[in-house]
Amino acid sequence: MTEQGERQRAAPRFTRAFRQKFAELIAWRRDVRRFTGAPLDEARLDRLLELAMHAPSVGNSQPWRFVDVRTPALRQAIIAEFERCNAEALAAYDGERAGCYAQLKLAGLREAPVHLAVFSEENPQAGHGLGRATMPETVHYSTLMAVHTLWLAARAEGLGVGWVSILDPARVKAALDVPASWRFIAYLCIGEPCEEHLDPELVRHGWQAPLPIEVVVHRR
Amino acid sequence: MTEQGERQRAAPRFTRAFRQKFAELIAWRRDVRRFTGAPLDEARLDRLLELAMHAPSVGNSQPWRFVDVRTPALRQAIIAEFERCNAEALAAYDGERAGCYAQLKLAGLREAPVHLAVFSEENPQAGHGLGRATMPETVHYSTLMAVHTLWLAARAEGLGVGWVSILDPARVKAALDVPASWRFIAYLCIGEPCEEHLDPELVRHGWQAPLPIEVVVHRR
Repeated sequence: MTEQGERQRAAPRFTRAFRQKFAELIAWRRDVRRFTGAPLDEARLDRLLELAMHAPSVGNSQPWRFVDVRTPALRQAIIAEFERCNAEALAAYDGERAGCYAQLKLAGLREAPVHLAVFSEENPQAGHGLGRATMPETVHYSTLMAVHTLWLAARAEGLGVGWVSILDPARVKAALDVPASWRFIAYLCIGEPCEEHLDPELVRHGWQAPLPIEVVVHRR
Repeated sequence: MTEQGERQRAAPRFTRAFRQKFAELIAWRRDVRRFTGAPLDEARLDRLLELAMHAPSVGNSQPWRFVDVRTPALRQAIIAEFERCNAEALAAYDGERAGCYAQLKLAGLREAPVHLAVFSEENPQAGHGLGRATMPETVHYSTLMAVHTLWLAARAEGLGVGWVSILDPARVKAALDVPASWRFIAYLCIGEPCEEHLDPELVRHGWQAPLPIEVVVHRR
């Protein structure tokens, strides 16, 4: 057992006031699809990424891989791919549901100053396999922890994050030319939001209401 | 478009001081395996679960399902299952790595006052399929967002969370008798931690160092 990694610092205390503010952060984090289009200072994105590096990961495998997509032609390819997949998704709904779906704004790809594609290294050397013999999917689960860390950090900065999942993972991988061993996890739009809401857009627009806690919490 | 869900409240502002404290929360969140064994007030667990309900989810599908495992015989079955899987995992390492693995404490199942099993509904009706036609796995990704929310909320309360993934999902499902449509995601130990650290246990004990950010962040 080596103690070399330990920096001797007193553990912080978190007050009730902090917890209340943290609960507000959780409550007011939204999936944002409406961005002002204002550019984002690179240092702010760096801060979000640095914080995301502290996310938990199985065996400390740190499998998250972020691709900051800057090239206009690549962004355009992703937008086209979203539009193709979204048209297919719409075609799968009927009647009133289809009408509702068609009116939803499901991505802010054109307006967001930052496009961040998130991948997982499928079989990272880091972590030496610890904790994933029976559940290899925990590698990807770790990457989700980093996504959520970044998301909350962005909200605390007054920035919005929108997650676009209406994409074909194989096509995204091909477009962005990433290693074969990376799994596509998420495509994030990041930028200054046009508006702030306490309720999710899909609640507000009548798509899906919150579930009662009894559906979710059980006892054995 | 209905506005009925919107509660008219001013959006909160998050100060630089809050962001600094939030960064400390991220930095000091640990995977805890050493619990004092002190009982946990039920209201505190409820608070964590209520906050987790605000996690983002694909199509607002809210697929997370939490099982508060109270029955001693069920807890014992999980402990036995962990010990079986952990012995198998150890057997896969050789030499120095095996020696290091054998000395790691990888779960606090015996001491933690709360055992919380986390599942995902594989095909939730909620959300009406939105956002998951091309990426059905985003249902499970949503559940990870709830896990991470709960984890941070616990840390803000001074509570530790330890994630046990060294378990066979099929056996956990069978032991806890959950619906066939639920996927096992995580088994969490929650309680008062014995100690607090800024560096992860797996770093401190020489298993896996942090990666440089260059490995993780790329540009296209």
